[in-house]
Amino acid sequence: MTVITSPHNEKLKTLRRLQRRRDGRFVAEGEDLLAAADAAGWEPLERFAAAGSGLPGTEVEAEVLAKVSALGSGTRALAVYRERWATAPTGPRCVALWGVRDPGNVGTVLRSALAFGADCVAIGPGTADPYGPKAVRASMGALFAVPVARVEGIAELPGERIALVARAGAPLAATAPSPDCTLVVGAEREGLPGDVVAGCDRTAHIPIASESLNAAMAATVALYELSRNPA
Amino acid sequence: MTVITSPHNEKLKTLRRLQRRRDGRFVAEGEDLLAAADAAGWEPLERFAAAGSGLPGTEVEAEVLAKVSALGSGTRALAVYRERWATAPTGPRCVALWGVRDPGNVGTVLRSALAFGADCVAIGPGTADPYGPKAVRASMGALFAVPVARVEGIAELPGERIALVARAGAPLAATAPSPDCTLVVGAEREGLPGDVVAGCDRTAHIPIASESLNAAMAATVALYELSRNPA
Repeated sequence: MTVITSPHNEKLKTLRRLQRRRDGRFVAEGEDLLAAADAAGWEPLERFAAAGSGLPGTEVEAEVLAKVSALGSGTRALAVYRERWATAPTGPRCVALWGVRDPGNVGTVLRSALAFGADCVAIGPGTADPYGPKAVRASMGALFAVPVARVEGIAELPGERIALVARAGAPLAATAPSPDCTLVVGAEREGLPGDVVAGCDRTAHIPIASESLNAAMAATVALYELSRNPA
Repeated sequence: MTVITSPHNEKLKTLRRLQRRRDGRFVAEGEDLLAAADAAGWEPLERFAAAGSGLPGTEVEAEVLAKVSALGSGTRALAVYRERWATAPTGPRCVALWGVRDPGNVGTVLRSALAFGADCVAIGPGTADPYGPKAVRASMGALFAVPVARVEGIAELPGERIALVARAGAPLAATAPSPDCTLVVGAEREGLPGDVVAGCDRTAHIPIASESLNAAMAATVALYELSRNPA
């Protein structure tokens, strides 16, 4: 087995290019993320491991690997995967993000979707790319387990559409959502656009004593609330 | 009114020193945070504003202020406050953090505590400083509204102590917590130390389909669950 010792190696060059600009492929770093991918049956296109680590993949001298890593010097494993996009979001339980620009929030929603049994995350207009490095990391591997689909309009969302809006509509706990439903969540400050709210089947909120929750926390609590009352 | 134009100004030097190492005082940045402090009745020890911004405070030339800012060039307002520590955590509803090292998670828990009506956040051993810059920022100003107290042991926590542990005890929704209670939350990976769990009055969990939630998400959902069934 050859060990890559040069940062100018062609495979590593491709990796660095992918970190800057993706082309349908993305990079995941760290043993936990790669284990999540394995567990979910994702086959890497290419896999790298620190030389001597005993981890599977093309061996790379530790210092050279550290330089390729976006996380810093700790990474011992790194792999390239092909993005997977569902052709359409699927139910019975879906969460849709509209204008959620922060990739950390998108990753957190993926993690909550997995935790609370959502079937799909729909990525609406103005939402951060779930395959971007920060979203992948924040998802803690949930990205490999929960299908994602791009959507342009709410007509594409499955089941009853529930717009989550601060202080409008009924408390989510007091609604009796259809077993088939999509929770539609907007950006932290702007909230959901008026036409999106108007196009949804109902409006609900999470009762809070303060000004606001961030998008990821609101979605997490709402997904928990829905999971409390399974269809 | 004199405008500070030199980065060597003594007041700015003090500010930079405080950003590196605090001494019972801390720095908050941004108009939203400062407005939250004002609303909660916190008097700044010193307040700075970009020259010409019309904001209250000692005027500082915009470029000089940008260099002092930990957030980057956008900051137009910045203030120094004295830390406030409650002598003991208070109920009827308290959340205690044990070994939650990530300051972003600590800030998020403060925000959720405010949103869901907790009376106090207890900062247990190994937990990030709530007055650190990242925690202050993540709290979105909740730090100014929710009392914090340092604790060394669970005996200091008010009311019934509920240890939140992954997959142990009853689902939190199925428990009937005492109106006076403290929710005890541990670190993401390690969870709560065994002796802390053993010393609590009961153990509960948030039912999830995946491996784990992070500490902030778990605490947020648990605080929501408690707020659903007000005492």
